[in-house]
Amino acid sequence: MSLSQPYLPEDFLLTTAWSRKLYFDHAIKQPIYDYHCHLPPDQIAGNKQFANLTEIWLGGDHYKWRALRAAGVPEDLITGKASSDYDKLLAFARAVPQLVRNPLHHWSHLELRRFFGIDLLINEANAPKIWEAANAKLRTPALSTHGILTSNRVNVVCTTDDPADTLEHHLAIAKSGLGTRVYPTFRPDKAMVVNAPAVFNPWCDLLSQRSGIEVKSLATLLEALDQRHGFFHSVGGRLSDHGLEALPDVDCTEREAAAIFNQARSGTAATPDQTAKFVWFIMVYLGRLDAKRGWTKQLHLGALRNNNSRLLKRLGADAGVDSIGDFPQTRALSRYLDTLDRDNQLPKIVLYNLNPADNYAFSTMIGNFQDGTIPGKLQFGSGWWFLDQKEAMEWQINALSQLGLLSRFVGMLTDSRSFLSYVRHEYFRRLLCSMIGADVEAGLIPADEAEVSKLIRDICYDNAAGYFGLQAGTL
Amino acid sequence: MSLSQPYLPEDFLLTTAWSRKLYFDHAIKQPIYDYHCHLPPDQIAGNKQFANLTEIWLGGDHYKWRALRAAGVPEDLITGKASSDYDKLLAFARAVPQLVRNPLHHWSHLELRRFFGIDLLINEANAPKIWEAANAKLRTPALSTHGILTSNRVNVVCTTDDPADTLEHHLAIAKSGLGTRVYPTFRPDKAMVVNAPAVFNPWCDLLSQRSGIEVKSLATLLEALDQRHGFFHSVGGRLSDHGLEALPDVDCTEREAAAIFNQARSGTAATPDQTAKFVWFIMVYLGRLDAKRGWTKQLHLGALRNNNSRLLKRLGADAGVDSIGDFPQTRALSRYLDTLDRDNQLPKIVLYNLNPADNYAFSTMIGNFQDGTIPGKLQFGSGWWFLDQKEAMEWQINALSQLGLLSRFVGMLTDSRSFLSYVRHEYFRRLLCSMIGADVEAGLIPADEAEVSKLIRDICYDNAAGYFGLQAGTL
Amino acid sequence: MSLSQPYLPEDFLLTTAWSRKLYFDHAIKQPIYDYHCHLPPDQIAGNKQFANLTEIWLGGDHYKWRALRAAGVPEDLITGKASSDYDKLLAFARAVPQLVRNPLHHWSHLELRRFFGIDLLINEANAPKIWEAANAKLRTPALSTHGILTSNRVNVVCTTDDPADTLEHHLAIAKSGLGTRVYPTFRPDKAMVVNAPAVFNPWCDLLSQRSGIEVKSLATLLEALDQRHGFFHSVGGRLSDHGLEALPDVDCTEREAAAIFNQARSGTAATPDQTAKFVWFIMVYLGRLDAKRGWTKQLHLGALRNNNSRLLKRLGADAGVDSIGDFPQTRALSRYLDTLDRDNQLPKIVLYNLNPADNYAFSTMIGNFQDGTIPGKLQFGSGWWFLDQKEAMEWQINALSQLGLLSRFVGMLTDSRSFLSYVRHEYFRRLLCSMIGADVEAGLIPADEAEVSKLIRDICYDNAAGYFGLQAGTL
Repeated sequence: MSLSQPYLPEDFLLTTAWSRKLYFDHAIKQPIYDYHCHLPPDQIAGNKQFANLTEIWLGGDHYKWRALRAAGVPEDLITGKASSDYDKLLAFARAVPQLVRNPLHHWSHLELRRFFGIDLLINEANAPKIWEAANAKLRTPALSTHGILTSNRVNVVCTTDDPADTLEHHLAIAKSGLGTRVYPTFRPDKAMVVNAPAVFNPWCDLLSQRSGIEVKSLATLLEALDQRHGFFHSVGGRLSDHGLEALPDVDCTEREAAAIFNQARSGTAATPDQTAKFVWFIMVYLGRLDAKRGWTKQLHLGALRNNNSRLLKRLGADAGVDSIGDFPQTRALSRYLDTLDRDNQLPKIVLYNLNPADNYAFSTMIGNFQDGTIPGKLQFGSGWWFLDQKEAMEWQINALSQLGLLSRFVGMLTDSRSFLSYVRHEYFRRLLCSMIGADVEAGLIPADEAEVSKLIRDICYDNAAGYFGLQAGTL
Repeated sequence: MSLSQPYLPEDFLLTTAWSRKLYFDHAIKQPIYDYHCHLPPDQIAGNKQFANLTEIWLGGDHYKWRALRAAGVPEDLITGKASSDYDKLLAFARAVPQLVRNPLHHWSHLELRRFFGIDLLINEANAPKIWEAANAKLRTPALSTHGILTSNRVNVVCTTDDPADTLEHHLAIAKSGLGTRVYPTFRPDKAMVVNAPAVFNPWCDLLSQRSGIEVKSLATLLEALDQRHGFFHSVGGRLSDHGLEALPDVDCTEREAAAIFNQARSGTAATPDQTAKFVWFIMVYLGRLDAKRGWTKQLHLGALRNNNSRLLKRLGADAGVDSIGDFPQTRALSRYLDTLDRDNQLPKIVLYNLNPADNYAFSTMIGNFQDGTIPGKLQFGSGWWFLDQKEAMEWQINALSQLGLLSRFVGMLTDSRSFLSYVRHEYFRRLLCSMIGADVEAGLIPADEAEVSKLIRDICYDNAAGYFGLQAGTL
Repeated sequence: MSLSQPYLPEDFLLTTAWSRKLYFDHAIKQPIYDYHCHLPPDQIAGNKQFANLTEIWLGGDHYKWRALRAAGVPEDLITGKASSDYDKLLAFARAVPQLVRNPLHHWSHLELRRFFGIDLLINEANAPKIWEAANAKLRTPALSTHGILTSNRVNVVCTTDDPADTLEHHLAIAKSGLGTRVYPTFRPDKAMVVNAPAVFNPWCDLLSQRSGIEVKSLATLLEALDQRHGFFHSVGGRLSDHGLEALPDVDCTEREAAAIFNQARSGTAATPDQTAKFVWFIMVYLGRLDAKRGWTKQLHLGALRNNNSRLLKRLGADAGVDSIGDFPQTRALSRYLDTLDRDNQLPKIVLYNLNPADNYAFSTMIGNFQDGTIPGKLQFGSGWWFLDQKEAMEWQINALSQLGLLSRFVGMLTDSRSFLSYVRHEYFRRLLCSMIGADVEAGLIPADEAEVSKLIRDICYDNAAGYFGLQAGTL
């Protein structure tokens, strides 16, 4: 009996011989298909080099901010402008030992190892060495954004973009010779905020300008959205995305939607009931656009956002004060998918839920609308945001397995603002190989290496490559 | 280290010595008490012999249909009339390797092994052999419906029947000398559909004819229901069943219910609020009927049905387009059980939930109304429909264990339309022995073989036999 | 392979070498900090000696009552006045073998072993021996209330008390020289029952008397509550507690609250909407009181109480007929915490949920309001009531680990009416060491004994001692 173990050893999570075989012979060899993330396109276009470890590791990472606040670190050392980057790094390193069993502890150590070759435990004592070594490495081309994408063999990146975006960075990247193909994702949140004319109206104006269509009526809004959707398509985009608490469970006629539009456009905020109707109308329209162009629609449902008004005011959205909601979801989802399906205008859908209590409801919902045209046409999306960790990814994989077809799963995405998050694919793949390998060893999956390894390769990359229809790089 | 394992080996799921002992010395020896299923009584009465493997294995099995649609199989090869049975079998076999980790993969292989003695992996290459061998076996008496029930030692079958049913097949079976006792279950869904006069009124007419009581008022409806309940009782029936999304959380006076009845009977559909009231009124009445005759009421709550209107139109109900809802349940359940209990008219209840997020709420609810008269008078029902698989059955067993009395559990049912589903009892029993055996090995259950093996035998058969009060066969 | 194991052996739950080391070298050595329970202060003040095993073991323990009812034991042998204490003990012993896999089976055996040195299985045959031996032990000072608290090294006990309580027993205990420090918890349920004037008005009268402030208006109610809060503070209390189904999701002005108060005080029950408003108003006020005095507020949310009106009438509240609700929680929680935080008046909060389906939503909610002032300022509370058992405590520990900081967890409490419940700390600690030890062995936590053992000691005692700011005993 030994009481000493290495931390995150070479075969961590891989507890069976089958797991290790599947991971090292197959999973690890697949490139990455990152079909949903929040990487800033300008940082890719500019092949950004980061100033120091704090910028690339802590800046913008609200997962870490939340953890630091819970650990008792003052806000100034987290997001404050007065604190130096080194002081922020030090505050983080001091807090990391408190993060044990949180996925940040695993991810942060893996990030240091895989990107910087630093094998130290993160703590106050090691902070100076980590700072030095990491910053030195950050000055090399290997850690430019292009360097990272290339060495991680990221063949596809889909960013998240407003319909009024010029996509200038995407166009620049396409011409740059970068091996990674970078596509925009159509995320029209602002097309539905009739409850906030102060946001809605300037956005409509911008959309008018970018589309060349004056958005002065519902009809012209729809036309402009279609125009931009077509523009995203011309740049190679094939995905849309929405981050609603829940779909509304209402109907809305075109006449009703037009009246709500006119009211908002003239500066009067829509009521909650009107907003629900307008959201429904636009969501159905957008679903049909996606179907028309063969796109995939992503629905990220279930977040309760901006809970802390003090920090929202200080830092804006994505400040790390969002959490998991407990909203009814199924009736509205059923209505939405059926409304599109009824007219044969249901696009491919990836359905993500944030409350794991909804896993089973969501993963049975997709089964209602599989139609035999495309294997796995409706997808139960990978563990998202708070669920992007060991137990919750297991739950998602098990729910999909028990209630649908794991074999058709398009697998992991990063959903991250950070270029260092590609270690999450390693984490996911280890977990997947752990689970599948254990089942094979238990006689619950046929021990046919060709079949089982195909399953692994499919989920790691090949399914996504076949499903989304994007032209991929060949890294 | 070997990287080769047999698939579903003799001791699959039985990972400890105690588990194997409990399964092979005890569980496997118990006959089957199938207190809830959807087997067609006419196929039993007629001792049906099946034309081929597709008819017995794929026809009517909407679990498999869903999986095939997700696998990209066109509807014509699933439910289409134009495709041959062999082509359908072939389409299924081709898809099965995609079903890995879905319970269908386990069940389908077990069905082939246990009923047909076919040990092949199901895939395209083996399809012709499977088709030949299975069809040959299907021509033998061993695979008539009587043959299957007898060889599986099914001592009780409770089918699911409308109050207006003549029960002619049950009467015929009772005279046939079949060792299995087959009873009807009273499922009065149509007595509550005042929102659909086009269904409600013809049904009331049929009920009038079958009961000899002209259903022209609420009072006569209640009288006719009582009459049929008594008729089911005379045929040996002792169970009722209901498949509501959720119980309504309302009150309803007799006068209100009468008015709603009259309105529906005259052709005007009840509003949702009126329907809720009427359902409440009838459910309370039916609860009292069950209490009066010493029956057990089953409540199957939580399904969101018929989501896909295209397939509903094409195939009717039970097309494989139902899923798990996320409805509030507890307040209405509390009100319902308390309303009956207050007057000492609460029958035995088996409470099934479809959303596993409700496991804990449901299994604490039963504890509120246990009254010391009958051990385990209120039951938290076995994993149902989508939950009838490895992880969800474990959750149900654990929830019941932690919050109630596993020792009083009436155990597994098939809830199936297929005569081949008796392998689900094997699956359940292995899982049960796996869990109990592991706990004994860990010192968490006293290692007293007499007590522990009694627990297993009770849950596999003896509890149900004692609880439901049906006369059982002796196979 | 042996098929014989001791029941609950010395190392039960401790399956890895690391787990055993953490438990036996560290966890077991920590004293107990019982920051929330329902022990009767008079029994501590009077150093009560119990008449017999039934009184200390079965009296008032509604967990056991529920289990006995489910086991088919008549109410008379559970709570009836006609049955002798021995007959009740016998009825319990006869039922215990049916409780296998229920936490009561573990707890009851541990209670006999740890407090009475009785190592027998609890069943009918052993009942006479258990009765004799336990009663003999109960006559010794070791099993007086002081004896129990002292030998269990309980350094802090926080009872649960009404604001109108005189706290005479707490004052007496403080003077008694007992090594355990016993503090009151401010639980002002009755300050909000404007829907029940028959309860509210006599309570207001009592509060007037105890506070010396005539409660004749909202303003004087608030003043009197503040006065009592201050009195509890002077006695050493630093915690408040609330047992709502859910927080209301409404606003309420002072003027509205005053009108509702006046109406209730004049004998007219508030409507449900009015009650929700009043509860909101008072809860915000009380949150600010807690913030003002540096207290910790406990929110126990999610119980659906008093479901069985027959037993409620016969036995009153806490009769064992409560269960888990399925109420929406997150929006109201967010509103409540934000309302306090916005003005910098958010106290320390321990948030307990009763429905495990809410684990993830609750444990992300706390993250929104961590503010860097106090590490772990908002706590996701330990598994409570029905969740105070193996699988549910694991879920709570995992949810907190994945979504927050396990390292800051204030750990286990008893929440019990029984002096024998201190074995639940043993149970919790074993489970914790089991989980942490397994993670270390798997390489998922750094194998640094100093760090890991600190984590264990912190969660077992040191975090609570630092967090609540109560003066602790030194047992």
